Amino acid sequence: MKIADTPPLVTPATDSSLWPLHQIVADLRTIRSQWRTSQQRLPEPSSRELPSRDVLTTIAHALRGALFPLRLGPADLRPASEDFYVGHTLDSALNALLGQVKLELNFAGRTRPDDAGTQLDQQARDIVRTFATGLPEIRRLLDSDVEAAYLGDPAARSVDEILLCYPGIIAIIHHRLAHALYVLGVPLLARIVAELAHAETGIDIHPGARIGRGFFIDHGTGVVIGETAVIGERVRLYQAVTLGAKRFDTDASGALHKGLPRHPTVGDDVVIYAGATILGRITIGHGSAIGGNVWLTRSVPPGSIITQASLRQQTQDEATT
Amino acid sequence: MKIADTPPLVTPATDSSLWPLHQIVADLRTIRSQWRTSQQRLPEPSSRELPSRDVLTTIAHALRGALFPLRLGPADLRPASEDFYVGHTLDSALNALLGQVKLELNFAGRTRPDDAGTQLDQQARDIVRTFATGLPEIRRLLDSDVEAAYLGDPAARSVDEILLCYPGIIAIIHHRLAHALYVLGVPLLARIVAELAHAETGIDIHPGARIGRGFFIDHGTGVVIGETAVIGERVRLYQAVTLGAKRFDTDASGALHKGLPRHPTVGDDVVIYAGATILGRITIGHGSAIGGNVWLTRSVPPGSIITQASLRQQTQDEATT
Amino acid sequence: MKIADTPPLVTPATDSSLWPLHQIVADLRTIRSQWRTSQQRLPEPSSRELPSRDVLTTIAHALRGALFPLRLGPADLRPASEDFYVGHTLDSALNALLGQVKLELNFAGRTRPDDAGTQLDQQARDIVRTFATGLPEIRRLLDSDVEAAYLGDPAARSVDEILLCYPGIIAIIHHRLAHALYVLGVPLLARIVAELAHAETGIDIHPGARIGRGFFIDHGTGVVIGETAVIGERVRLYQAVTLGAKRFDTDASGALHKGLPRHPTVGDDVVIYAGATILGRITIGHGSAIGGNVWLTRSVPPGSIITQASLRQQTQDEATT
Amino acid sequence: MKIADTPPLVTPATDSSLWPLHQIVADLRTIRSQWRTSQQRLPEPSSRELPSRDVLTTIAHALRGALFPLRLGPADLRPASEDFYVGHTLDSALNALLGQVKLELNFAGRTRPDDAGTQLDQQARDIVRTFATGLPEIRRLLDSDVEAAYLGDPAARSVDEILLCYPGIIAIIHHRLAHALYVLGVPLLARIVAELAHAETGIDIHPGARIGRGFFIDHGTGVVIGETAVIGERVRLYQAVTLGAKRFDTDASGALHKGLPRHPTVGDDVVIYAGATILGRITIGHGSAIGGNVWLTRSVPPGSIITQASLRQQTQDEATT
Amino acid sequence: MKIADTPPLVTPATDSSLWPLHQIVADLRTIRSQWRTSQQRLPEPSSRELPSRDVLTTIAHALRGALFPLRLGPADLRPASEDFYVGHTLDSALNALLGQVKLELNFAGRTRPDDAGTQLDQQARDIVRTFATGLPEIRRLLDSDVEAAYLGDPAARSVDEILLCYPGIIAIIHHRLAHALYVLGVPLLARIVAELAHAETGIDIHPGARIGRGFFIDHGTGVVIGETAVIGERVRLYQAVTLGAKRFDTDASGALHKGLPRHPTVGDDVVIYAGATILGRITIGHGSAIGGNVWLTRSVPPGSIITQASLRQQTQDEATT
Amino acid sequence: MKIADTPPLVTPATDSSLWPLHQIVADLRTIRSQWRTSQQRLPEPSSRELPSRDVLTTIAHALRGALFPLRLGPADLRPASEDFYVGHTLDSALNALLGQVKLELNFAGRTRPDDAGTQLDQQARDIVRTFATGLPEIRRLLDSDVEAAYLGDPAARSVDEILLCYPGIIAIIHHRLAHALYVLGVPLLARIVAELAHAETGIDIHPGARIGRGFFIDHGTGVVIGETAVIGERVRLYQAVTLGAKRFDTDASGALHKGLPRHPTVGDDVVIYAGATILGRITIGHGSAIGGNVWLTRSVPPGSIITQASLRQQTQDEATT
Repeated sequence: MKIADTPPLVTPATDSSLWPLHQIVADLRTIRSQWRTSQQRLPEPSSRELPSRDVLTTIAHALRGALFPLRLGPADLRPASEDFYVGHTLDSALNALLGQVKLELNFAGRTRPDDAGTQLDQQARDIVRTFATGLPEIRRLLDSDVEAAYLGDPAARSVDEILLCYPGIIAIIHHRLAHALYVLGVPLLARIVAELAHAETGIDIHPGARIGRGFFIDHGTGVVIGETAVIGERVRLYQAVTLGAKRFDTDASGALHKGLPRHPTVGDDVVIYAGATILGRITIGHGSAIGGNVWLTRSVPPGSIITQASLRQQTQDEATT
Repeated sequence: MKIADTPPLVTPATDSSLWPLHQIVADLRTIRSQWRTSQQRLPEPSSRELPSRDVLTTIAHALRGALFPLRLGPADLRPASEDFYVGHTLDSALNALLGQVKLELNFAGRTRPDDAGTQLDQQARDIVRTFATGLPEIRRLLDSDVEAAYLGDPAARSVDEILLCYPGIIAIIHHRLAHALYVLGVPLLARIVAELAHAETGIDIHPGARIGRGFFIDHGTGVVIGETAVIGERVRLYQAVTLGAKRFDTDASGALHKGLPRHPTVGDDVVIYAGATILGRITIGHGSAIGGNVWLTRSVPPGSIITQASLRQQTQDEATT
Repeated sequence: MKIADTPPLVTPATDSSLWPLHQIVADLRTIRSQWRTSQQRLPEPSSRELPSRDVLTTIAHALRGALFPLRLGPADLRPASEDFYVGHTLDSALNALLGQVKLELNFAGRTRPDDAGTQLDQQARDIVRTFATGLPEIRRLLDSDVEAAYLGDPAARSVDEILLCYPGIIAIIHHRLAHALYVLGVPLLARIVAELAHAETGIDIHPGARIGRGFFIDHGTGVVIGETAVIGERVRLYQAVTLGAKRFDTDASGALHKGLPRHPTVGDDVVIYAGATILGRITIGHGSAIGGNVWLTRSVPPGSIITQASLRQQTQDEATT
Repeated sequence: MKIADTPPLVTPATDSSLWPLHQIVADLRTIRSQWRTSQQRLPEPSSRELPSRDVLTTIAHALRGALFPLRLGPADLRPASEDFYVGHTLDSALNALLGQVKLELNFAGRTRPDDAGTQLDQQARDIVRTFATGLPEIRRLLDSDVEAAYLGDPAARSVDEILLCYPGIIAIIHHRLAHALYVLGVPLLARIVAELAHAETGIDIHPGARIGRGFFIDHGTGVVIGETAVIGERVRLYQAVTLGAKRFDTDASGALHKGLPRHPTVGDDVVIYAGATILGRITIGHGSAIGGNVWLTRSVPPGSIITQASLRQQTQDEATT
Repeated sequence: MKIADTPPLVTPATDSSLWPLHQIVADLRTIRSQWRTSQQRLPEPSSRELPSRDVLTTIAHALRGALFPLRLGPADLRPASEDFYVGHTLDSALNALLGQVKLELNFAGRTRPDDAGTQLDQQARDIVRTFATGLPEIRRLLDSDVEAAYLGDPAARSVDEILLCYPGIIAIIHHRLAHALYVLGVPLLARIVAELAHAETGIDIHPGARIGRGFFIDHGTGVVIGETAVIGERVRLYQAVTLGAKRFDTDASGALHKGLPRHPTVGDDVVIYAGATILGRITIGHGSAIGGNVWLTRSVPPGSIITQASLRQQTQDEATT
Repeated sequence: MKIADTPPLVTPATDSSLWPLHQIVADLRTIRSQWRTSQQRLPEPSSRELPSRDVLTTIAHALRGALFPLRLGPADLRPASEDFYVGHTLDSALNALLGQVKLELNFAGRTRPDDAGTQLDQQARDIVRTFATGLPEIRRLLDSDVEAAYLGDPAARSVDEILLCYPGIIAIIHHRLAHALYVLGVPLLARIVAELAHAETGIDIHPGARIGRGFFIDHGTGVVIGETAVIGERVRLYQAVTLGAKRFDTDASGALHKGLPRHPTVGDDVVIYAGATILGRITIGHGSAIGGNVWLTRSVPPGSIITQASLRQQTQDEATT
């Protein structure tokens, strides 16, 4: 069939008088095409390439329900059918996750010529199986987080309200799931799961961060925890705390090596109050307390108590030395 | 009952080859069981114990619509059927709320052996009736808040866009509903209603806070207002303001008494600019203005104008004295 | 009509025993009526007056899908039907938008006696047509933003994950759509579209702000950009940055003129780190870097590097001069 | 822009390998175009021309609920909010109906050049207002039908189960609504409402049929009642009864005049048993009983009892005469 | 209370100009009120009185899925989670059923003054428990029906398509569930479940009918089986078969005793072809075949083959005798 | 594996007191297991085996919309985006159909050991591609059916209402789609598509039937058309017509050969009136008219007019011959 024989879909004369729909569609296609070219992509993929945020949303909600059925599951769930709900919900969620894992592996594998489809399929199944068998351990860790929340907040009346009310718990549930995916080699899915919690809670934890048991974030809006941060056990954070990279000082070479440790290491039993900013691969010694709004770019020994005032004093001391 | 006596749910031979579903379900059950034991719960409750966040979400949206039908109600609502919509929506929402109130009362009453079920039912009905008859007064308060928002923001073009656009209004609607529930003795429901607004707006107001008429929060992300805060009339706040507890200084005893006044008291006609942090049971005198990013832990008299610069000066003055 | 003449909706004798439903409905009506009176409105409008946030939500999601079909469109979309999906989705969304534009124009025109309905209809169609034909250019701008995000974040592994994971991209998509509506004369719709992104991402950009190509916000929670801000090309922002008005200093006259330039102008290739607050109609020269938590209220020349330390030094220098 | 400049939407080279999607779409368009031409239609209408079955489905369900709120309304409706539900539901349904009436009037008016749009709008409003004010009378008629069902069926235990269980009641509700629309001049909407009941119950009543009070159809599947049928009061029908036109005998001229009386007239208190076929403009005298499977094409006097046996006898008598 | 005392809902002055909404609502209320009075009901019930067809629809679909999970359950169900799905679905459905059973018992018990609420609750629980424990036996019976369908239809290619395609199977699933409810004393729920199948399939089986194993209805539209019919094992029916009451002959007394046996008894291994009408408490001997369109009102011995011709012959024989 | 070795799912001690949920689930599993054994199936399949009726429902509705976009498509579709809607909808539907075709082929292929998965995949793609490219021709045939309906019914006011109101059109749309699937070798999907129309219209056409252009069924409830029926052009049928197999006479051998021609052949321009029953592989000559309720088991020549009376006469003639 010659192109000239093809009746065009663009039919200006009969087009709606309201807006030039066909022209807009064509223009958008042209721009998409230019984008693909500029990104050195094939002109048009033969099937969907990327995971779906909507599907991940469904999966994440199902996993939340399966982990805490009577708290985060459906309103009409009775204890007698708890196991049934968990089993059915888990299986659906894991199946859907398997599909998304395949999408990410296929997408990542586009440039690896030696990867056959079946190998990727097997890899995807291995990832989901490992993830699935790790869920009980994740629930155990989350129980320690719930307990820490109860102990850490004077306003909490019972351990039961934590799961229903505390955004910090939603954030850590998503993080522990996302971190498991990150470790298993599907960082894009991990990131989406993390961002779903970010949108819901204002707490932004990169799935790469390693966080010990008994972790609690109170209020939480504005918290940012970077990819290579390492956090010990029983650590407590308040809103607007940043555990970030000291990127400003390292703009010399221009080319930032991805994956290098560049975020803080926080010891056990540390408390970091609201608005504190801790930057760079520094160490906060165990048992320390970092005061509100503190700006910290160097390591502190165990048991330190750092406030804005103490920092000012220290700066003056250094200046006068 | 010994655990060994329980026939396991696991049936390995027929299990799916993709993942050991029965084993995971059994493991999750074991961990839930251990959690209940560690929390000194009965091994398995006979029915659902806790309110449902999903149900509360539906209730809160219905109440928003019933309070402002032509702004927050359904898109096809006509003024002629406004009352009908309000009546039908309210009745459904109150009925659903009654069910949730019963759940919270039953749950809270587990350890009170003298409470009979019928007494709780009567108490639940009283709570919802009082809440319901208070809704007109809440609407009246919210009208004052809407007006304050219009007066307070130079970007607002008309009073009508406030309800459609301003997250601060969503936050205060939820707060006034949540506070009513808090006062009536269902703090868990109150907290859930508050957290729904927190998730939607990034504004975190504890339902215990007492807030006067004409309250306005602009932008709002990151605002935190504590349980025992008391706020006067016509107060205006900007994003990232904290009215918190000065917890850092009081870690001596370790055991924090719950419910003690520990958050600021803010007088009438106070403005607090973005990022200001005000901690402890201090008083901000009426008519004061607190500048952006100010860190304040002591009371200020009426009419004060506090900025970062004025605070620095004061600190230096104190140091040189 | 006297209020006493109105037969009440209340029918106490047959009312439910649970709560006085008719009384509450009547009270709410009275208060709505008082509000209308206090706002000098007609006692009851004959039809819906204002746009609907729910409808705008649907429109915004449809436009997101039409702009990035294989990333933000439905999970089962195949490349082969990309154009079809775009065309069908766009037409539905534009039609719905046309209805909302008419609502806003009618509402704004209530006080303009010379505006006939047909004139408003024509105006609405012009607005939507112009908006529609501008969508390809918006997509082109957004492509530059996606590329900037990839270049700007060391944690980004591929350009593909940007649209799926980065809240900053959602914020800028909404902003570019909202800004187009703002310029076309429907500021209320623009504001709603902007606030939908604010709720989802914690990033609050007023639709009036003018933002150049290659814009990127990382993490983003707590960012506030004011109505008259002007931002150059390839600008990068981090969480909790404020580009605000220096309102605190200008409380002399009391009456703030709306629409006057009162937010910063940011040059090309500027980076502003987390928590920086930049207030007033000042200029940040191109190529500058503003450090974390910096509080800046005066202009800086091109190529400036501003940190908390440099500012302190400068203040001391000035003090000692 | 010249057509030649327009990039065609058909792009064979990049088309999906699964099926020639663009070609199929183009072929379907060609056939739709040929159909329009063959029906002497304009090549492409500028907007939707016809009512929507989906919208009518929603309207019909809403009207069912508004007529019998505690039986056919939502499951959680309480008596206390019955009026509110009715008012809100009615108003929504009538508004939607108004839109559909306009569509039908516009469509029917295409060939009447003298009809202005505003005149049609006024006509549509008149139709819906008349329909709306007639609803109470329709409810009163339906109450007589419900009572007839209870009296007529030995298996009915209480009047309450009629509305919940009897398909004949659904059919007569739809018919009485459809007949009102038919009389008001929107026969297409009337027909759709009737067909919705046909699909649900297997009972096919043309909206033109005139049916008296106290009408009851038991079981009902396969009943057909023609456009010009006239049925008295307290008539009872069983499944598979046909009140049809004697079309078979009148094929001489070929051109059937539409609207002429061609279906039976049935007197008061008639019972027609299952499978009876009554054809042509004949009269069944009041108080008659027509037996199962009877085939009747001539009038019978009041009080007749017609069975297959009696008919056979009559035929034989006639034959022997 | 006199009607005149009731303040009307109507507020003419503020009513919509499109239709007198308040007046219509008031008229409908008046008619509902008159209906209640004529039915000797209390003027207004304090809560919902009757079961909900919508809720029963959900329950019936859930039970269908639980009985045949991989055929009638959700499309994404995997065999590995079959039991989990069954358990969770069953528990939800039984809980919802419990609520509906209570509604019917309360409703039926209105006139029984000695029934306390708690007694009804216990009765409801007993009914649902007995129903629940009978489900496996119902599934076993249904398996015999599926097998009969496969054996009975030459067009069936495999036993697997029966559940997916055959309306007769849907009808018998609903019947066996409905019959169990009927026997347990909730005939209204039973009837609703039966009518749901009637609407879906055109097959109308009264829940009181007793039907043996291996029952199959082919095509099915128009089949009617009465309340006291008794059907043996391995019986096969075709479309439009009626097993009805010979009501026409018994109109002498006028007062029909409800519940008396008045429908046919059909022996084992009987086939009844399309359109056959069998009326009255007669017996069809086992192994008989009843031809299409046969009209039968007297018993036939085992092994009979009845056709229209044989009946005509018999009639003539009788006439000539 | 012996059954005794399988650890049971039942955990009596912790079971709900309301009903023995675990026991019921276990019993249902046992019965499913017995059923599989009795059907000589593998004990548990590794994945879903059969197509889903729900998915087919979605596909059929999408295809209806794609074939008649402005009549059966969404209510808000504008002519300007007709092609876009068609393309997007078709692609989704065909993709979903591809999945269902694979399920049927896999299922049918279980016993064919030489079929590899990839071969089935290719076969599935071929089937869907052929089906897809045949859709324009199906639309063309359906146009002839719509025209026939308009010409055949004196109550039809315009050709436009046919698609909106006439169940016969729904039935023939489904049939032409189902027949295409049947011919392409997926008879189970074909049957499901046909049964969806049966449930909606009461018209039961086996997908194997071959039906010429210009086919029209009026009213339709109770029509049955068998698998091997052949129907010419411009044929018209009324409700309750059966074109069936004369099965009753052929019960000698017992084993019925599936697929043999056993239903009538109907010539062009034949009219068959309501309730007529035509059985066996007989021929109705073109241009014939078959009267209501006629029972016909032998062929009739072209131009025949058959009524109950003429048949009686004929029978008597034969009897007297």
